[in-house]
Amino acid sequence: MLTVWTLPGIPEITAGADLVGLIADAAGDTLRDGDILVVTSKIVSKAEGRFVTADDREDAITAETVRLVASRTSDTGHTTRIVENRLGIVAAAAGVDASNTPEGTVLLLPEDPDSSAQRIAAGLRLRLGVEVGVIVSDTLGRAWREGQTDSAIGAAGIHVFEDLRGTTDAEGRPLVVTLPCVADELAAATDLVKGKAARLPVAVVRGRADLVGPLDLPGARSIVRPAERDMFHRGADEAYADGYAAGAASVSD
Amino acid sequence: MLTVWTLPGIPEITAGADLVGLIADAAGDTLRDGDILVVTSKIVSKAEGRFVTADDREDAITAETVRLVASRTSDTGHTTRIVENRLGIVAAAAGVDASNTPEGTVLLLPEDPDSSAQRIAAGLRLRLGVEVGVIVSDTLGRAWREGQTDSAIGAAGIHVFEDLRGTTDAEGRPLVVTLPCVADELAAATDLVKGKAARLPVAVVRGRADLVGPLDLPGARSIVRPAERDMFHRGADEAYADGYAAGAASVSD
Repeated sequence: MLTVWTLPGIPEITAGADLVGLIADAAGDTLRDGDILVVTSKIVSKAEGRFVTADDREDAITAETVRLVASRTSDTGHTTRIVENRLGIVAAAAGVDASNTPEGTVLLLPEDPDSSAQRIAAGLRLRLGVEVGVIVSDTLGRAWREGQTDSAIGAAGIHVFEDLRGTTDAEGRPLVVTLPCVADELAAATDLVKGKAARLPVAVVRGRADLVGPLDLPGARSIVRPAERDMFHRGADEAYADGYAAGAASVSD
Repeated sequence: MLTVWTLPGIPEITAGADLVGLIADAAGDTLRDGDILVVTSKIVSKAEGRFVTADDREDAITAETVRLVASRTSDTGHTTRIVENRLGIVAAAAGVDASNTPEGTVLLLPEDPDSSAQRIAAGLRLRLGVEVGVIVSDTLGRAWREGQTDSAIGAAGIHVFEDLRGTTDAEGRPLVVTLPCVADELAAATDLVKGKAARLPVAVVRGRADLVGPLDLPGARSIVRPAERDMFHRGADEAYADGYAAGAASVSD
């Protein structure tokens, strides 16, 4: 059985805020070994002072962009850029966020969410004396499916995958699905309790203590598939255009 | 707060099984209005007799395939085909499943998972006298991220999206993330309790009764993004090759 709940009493976060202290105060003595905290990346970014002025939103997106993956402009003239950002994450607008931040600012993603998760997990383990795992979550769109879901962009002290490779099913046959991404599933589960407009950026999942482990387990960066191994590293229109140019050039030469 | 648990006592499912009866028996009187059941598509397929012989696995994949999206062969000679299947879902091997089925068979996805969800939801509401929602879940890989997560391929009596378009955040600014796909998040949450090898194909989520509604709400088909609106409707290598051929042909003509 799984229980998922939000920690009440997390105040508005400003640059320099002591997230470990605030989360520990909000949790009180309610946490146990094996609990997993899912912290919205937004408050991690705020605590780390990852603000830029709103005038620079498009520049901020460009600065965070390592590679354009795909782009499309709607009939109304709105352009959506799907890019690979510094963290290797493929997302719209490089994850730059204009909501839930002070007027005139936009918020970048944390510089290194795995490190942020590390600091929070280590701090909470020390402060509260309980062996908890920490995920830093962000809302991402996806290919082929409408809408958004929450995923893990940072993680510490948890197994981000359940490695079932080489195991069998109830009849002794090899499992086909071998790598459930439990970190993303944990993030998704907590999105159901957090709400998008309310101030509930920290949630706890209890019931999968088996997923909690040493702080040096791989982080969420290990979930990102490298571009060279990704069949969708480029949008279809962009790849077609690249091919077209090369094909035409090959004949002209 | 959310609680997620599995229903014990679901037996091995064979063709013609009365899923409503079996789930109702397993649930007893423990369900309440607003509970959401997430049923693994595998048992829906089994009850609907969606077996084909194992010799035909590759043929089965081809038969379920509407369109090849992308394909890659590893150094070891293993080919992964990402295809759009009859349900519009983009997935590896069209969702054809060779594990957890009797020797010599493979299992196709349900013919119409939304209809299956409808029948189960309607049957349970009648039989148990509680207003429940039903999701039919399946394990899917994804672009850009390793591993798999569970998503909703069928749904009845629930809002598959939380429609936040036009709403604002705590400071009154328009929300950027406007369409959380709660159906996929519910499916992901239950994957954390079901296990892949164990016989726990039905789980319950309690705590989002606000998502349960009339049986005629849109189903999970509404989550699938139509190919013409999907920037990743074709793998990068495939699109490049298409463009290359067209570019070369354009110069030759």
